Amino acid sequence: MEKERETLQAWKERVGQELDRVVAFWMEHSHDQEHGGFFTCLDREGRVYDDLKYVWLQGRQVWMYCRLYRTFQRFHHSQLLNAAKAGGEFLLRYARLAPPGKKCAFVLTRDGRPVKVQRTIFSECFYTMAMNELWRATGEVRYQTEAVEMMDQIVHWVREDASGLGRPQLQGAPTAEPMAVPMMLLNLVEQLGEADEELAGKYTELGDWCARRILQHVQRDGQAVLENVSEDGKELSGCLGRQQNPGHALEAGWFLLRHCIRKGDPELRAHVLDKFLLLPFRSGWDPDHGGLFYFQDADDFCPTQLEWAMKLWWPHSEAMIAFLMGYSESGDPVLLRLFYQVAEYTFRQFRDPEYGEWFGYLSREGKVALSIKGGPFKGCFHVPRCLAMCEEMLGAL
Amino acid sequence: MEKERETLQAWKERVGQELDRVVAFWMEHSHDQEHGGFFTCLDREGRVYDDLKYVWLQGRQVWMYCRLYRTFQRFHHSQLLNAAKAGGEFLLRYARLAPPGKKCAFVLTRDGRPVKVQRTIFSECFYTMAMNELWRATGEVRYQTEAVEMMDQIVHWVREDASGLGRPQLQGAPTAEPMAVPMMLLNLVEQLGEADEELAGKYTELGDWCARRILQHVQRDGQAVLENVSEDGKELSGCLGRQQNPGHALEAGWFLLRHCIRKGDPELRAHVLDKFLLLPFRSGWDPDHGGLFYFQDADDFCPTQLEWAMKLWWPHSEAMIAFLMGYSESGDPVLLRLFYQVAEYTFRQFRDPEYGEWFGYLSREGKVALSIKGGPFKGCFHVPRCLAMCEEMLGAL
Repeated sequence: MEKERETLQAWKERVGQELDRVVAFWMEHSHDQEHGGFFTCLDREGRVYDDLKYVWLQGRQVWMYCRLYRTFQRFHHSQLLNAAKAGGEFLLRYARLAPPGKKCAFVLTRDGRPVKVQRTIFSECFYTMAMNELWRATGEVRYQTEAVEMMDQIVHWVREDASGLGRPQLQGAPTAEPMAVPMMLLNLVEQLGEADEELAGKYTELGDWCARRILQHVQRDGQAVLENVSEDGKELSGCLGRQQNPGHALEAGWFLLRHCIRKGDPELRAHVLDKFLLLPFRSGWDPDHGGLFYFQDADDFCPTQLEWAMKLWWPHSEAMIAFLMGYSESGDPVLLRLFYQVAEYTFRQFRDPEYGEWFGYLSREGKVALSIKGGPFKGCFHVPRCLAMCEEMLGAL
Repeated sequence: MEKERETLQAWKERVGQELDRVVAFWMEHSHDQEHGGFFTCLDREGRVYDDLKYVWLQGRQVWMYCRLYRTFQRFHHSQLLNAAKAGGEFLLRYARLAPPGKKCAFVLTRDGRPVKVQRTIFSECFYTMAMNELWRATGEVRYQTEAVEMMDQIVHWVREDASGLGRPQLQGAPTAEPMAVPMMLLNLVEQLGEADEELAGKYTELGDWCARRILQHVQRDGQAVLENVSEDGKELSGCLGRQQNPGHALEAGWFLLRHCIRKGDPELRAHVLDKFLLLPFRSGWDPDHGGLFYFQDADDFCPTQLEWAMKLWWPHSEAMIAFLMGYSESGDPVLLRLFYQVAEYTFRQFRDPEYGEWFGYLSREGKVALSIKGGPFKGCFHVPRCLAMCEEMLGAL
């Protein structure tokens, strides 16, 4: 017991120190002093190898900085807040394609001109997260107005009418629901409802709907979490239907655990621990080399994604959060052991002791496959979010 | 000299036998007897793991079957021609989204309903190749009419007005030319002009334009072939501008060599051998593990494509064609040695002696990363085209 306590304490310190190093990396290398916003295409040493600004990553970094500023004494300094505000202003000014329309670009030039658009809701979701945290960190109401209006638009696209996203209607296209959609919305419900009774109330029904929709992705008599199902919760045919992403299931797991905490629902919690934590780990952990596979096929065909067997940073960050949260909520020592197993693999394989931050992409065998620290899909988000949440959870144990 | 002749003869036999095995694989596993067209999502053993029909791959298989039927005595049998015709009829009936409009789907359901569209010209290009070869194999004029009308539409999209492709106009999007566009068009110019004086004449200017545009991708004082340049032939900024794809440069190389043969231009041929064959091989061949990298960055940053260091089947098939054609045309023994080097690596690493056809995707170290024989981007095309062309070229030496 004493030994356990020491191990937990040692992990808390390790995680906290790593958080400092990771935040320092982004503070040093990613700020665009001229235009505001963040460079995220950073090589191993932190050099900018491309100056495009990916809206997901802009929004996420604003969110992360504000969150750290707001909830950690040692990050409560103006340098972090000012960078977050400059990022927020950049988004306010440039993210939307045709204001007052709400559709946001996927990627912008350094000075804010749109380069590409995705016909999905995710740029807008990270925009919303950024604006809501900016309001919390600064108290400026215009940020919150922006967040709530964008949230209304997103909910409209998802539940009422998706035509504003611009997707073509094709006769053979299945009406598939990617698990990311209700996951992202559930995450926003928690974000906007935090210590805000009015909004928490407004989004209660939405949160329940999201949870139900995520739970529909448990298929095959509870033996698989599938990434894509039909809108009425049936398995889809072909590769699309059989696709599994263990890290994504684990991330959904902790979103659902938070939902259970808000609801006070221990029965649902047990189901979530079983189906979204233990099941994806059992199927997704590589018995030969360690680490979580990126994609799997529920019938054990070889996935068609070239990176299916690669080990990516974010499934491991999300798994660390999921198992530690699962343990915090249930006290089940199996979950704590899984946290240790994932955290040890992750710290050993992904950390860069030399230049800071984590590598993002390893081969199946665990060798660094891409030496970049940031790129079109990796920014200041999954790693510091994991470290900050784990530090908090370990501190509360 | 005698030894050289023996080696060449041995390769001719090896390549010919391999072609038989590869064609047998597709004949046995890929034909959809019910709806026409081809299953291309085939696992290692040839089992269908998804029944979607990718239009690129439907068109390519029709083309390949007709070409083999027309130019190889041993493939001149009705089983191949009938499968090609059934594939052609499937395309005629279902590929276009809204006939008489020419835009084609990217992928169809097994029974021909559109699932996805790409806002590019490539589905239409492979449709054109298929129809032109079907006409050559069957003599039925309606196929040729279809090919020529589609070609006119493609040329209009590329050179006059791209708005029919449906790409959004975004202020920050660079007017980049991917090398694939003039490459594909040059390939079609050769296809349609073969033994057809009228069409060869009609497309002479277009062929010259394509060659000029491809040559604009040689940048940095002749030290790099870049995948994307501006329309006026300048390097673009960022990752997009620095992107290199050695296998693609080598494929462009043999398209250009064929152009030089038609033109009778030995000066251009020397330039092409230097810039599109020797240069990409020098930069793109992995000195540690052998094989061609998939993507590289001209400034040696790490590419952001997760598969950048993987070894894919098609760059190696295209390299075999390019070096053997280069040798056939120039007699330069350096090019023959490179053919042997690539062919030995390729036969050793990609062939599946057990179930036939080639693996498509190896790790950097050369291990099979995906065991599939076909998928959304791999069908009956690069491998048999390579083997058929090499058999012909080796026979003519």
